[in-house]
Amino acid sequence: MKIEGRNAVLEAVKSGKTIDRVMVRNGMRDEASRSLTSAIKSAGIKVHFVDKITIDNESVTGKHQGFIAFVTDYRYAEIEDIIKNPKSGSPFIVVLDGVEDPHNLGSVIRVCECAGADGLIIGKHRSAAVTETVMRISEGSANHLKIARVGNINAAVEFLKKNGVWVYAVELGGEDIYKTDLTGPLALVIGGEDTGVNRLTLEKCDKTVTIPMMGKVNSLNASVAAGVAVFEGVRQRR
Amino acid sequence: MKIEGRNAVLEAVKSGKTIDRVMVRNGMRDEASRSLTSAIKSAGIKVHFVDKITIDNESVTGKHQGFIAFVTDYRYAEIEDIIKNPKSGSPFIVVLDGVEDPHNLGSVIRVCECAGADGLIIGKHRSAAVTETVMRISEGSANHLKIARVGNINAAVEFLKKNGVWVYAVELGGEDIYKTDLTGPLALVIGGEDTGVNRLTLEKCDKTVTIPMMGKVNSLNASVAAGVAVFEGVRQRR
Repeated sequence: MKIEGRNAVLEAVKSGKTIDRVMVRNGMRDEASRSLTSAIKSAGIKVHFVDKITIDNESVTGKHQGFIAFVTDYRYAEIEDIIKNPKSGSPFIVVLDGVEDPHNLGSVIRVCECAGADGLIIGKHRSAAVTETVMRISEGSANHLKIARVGNINAAVEFLKKNGVWVYAVELGGEDIYKTDLTGPLALVIGGEDTGVNRLTLEKCDKTVTIPMMGKVNSLNASVAAGVAVFEGVRQRR
Repeated sequence: MKIEGRNAVLEAVKSGKTIDRVMVRNGMRDEASRSLTSAIKSAGIKVHFVDKITIDNESVTGKHQGFIAFVTDYRYAEIEDIIKNPKSGSPFIVVLDGVEDPHNLGSVIRVCECAGADGLIIGKHRSAAVTETVMRISEGSANHLKIARVGNINAAVEFLKKNGVWVYAVELGGEDIYKTDLTGPLALVIGGEDTGVNRLTLEKCDKTVTIPMMGKVNSLNASVAAGVAVFEGVRQRR
């Protein structure tokens, strides 16, 4: 879907809609245009500068004012939808905290779908959203998985705990995941590429579980770590 | 390392050296230059066209003849090195069959290193090699893992079997991996992004083992599949 014109694009950015990219006409030097461009960039959205002819051709309304946002139509779920009617008798959920790389998000969506998880919770901030690119990388898995996008990961963790779900962070320095019971109502929290699960979220979790590391560098890619942890859940829960 | 001049670059391409990319001067229209350029491209090596000044600046010898190849210094191991002195009493090896994406190769190298595997075997054809990019993606893991690059994956599988190693392909339609004993001398064969393990290799393997799939799309990324299978090996072998 396309959103055209300065105000409409600004509203879309502010509302946290999933914007793939914004097409901006070259040479928009007035104050309003410059501040909108920097707002778009600060929101982590790709800006694509093009000439007048290109943006005119792209416009449906003819009233783009130099700005067209391309918005993903993906329909997110609510956490409430994810925890009700669990497939395996009790909820099995993945929470992604600060994964910014679309390839990793797409790959984690595939993990959740293959594992038959009830859903995935991602953050609105410092996190990749379900864009067209992510949809493609997920090989369509995103259409078969409930994904909730929340403003505050810590509030989501609290909500899960209040609803009887155990929340375990997958991080270094915790209990051996292969010695941990993963069969109950469970959410596994996976951290971002560089930062891991953030400290405050870690404190809110019921437990930290750890994939044993036997090497020297000992750094798994975020989506691989998700795969290993989630499938250990699958193994135990079957 | 840089290799300069038409003949030297051609030899490097033919010998199967790990070439990151070849810098070619713009406008080389003679027959020899054109056939060399297409040989480089057919070998799946990136060609980077630049102007005279750029390639002159890059040249060490001053005799580049319009061609400079950038060769990776990574030192591959031999399969013999990988199977002797196994870390866990018996060999634990990963074989990658036709993984072309450098991100996936880098990610699988991290999996092997974290899992304490004895080594990784990759093919020379239709396969990513350990380039600078792969080294970076592997976060340095490639320096702590024995990686053998072989001309023929099937011959490598035969060699492993003759040396008492069980070779299991990780593919759909086989024995449940969670019900398979992975504790002996073992090599796990992981297939490429689209094609999976090729048919001939599959026939040579002792067994096919399968990660159970509980979804609708059921397609794991190659490096995630490697992570799930290899860490099930880790779990059983500890």
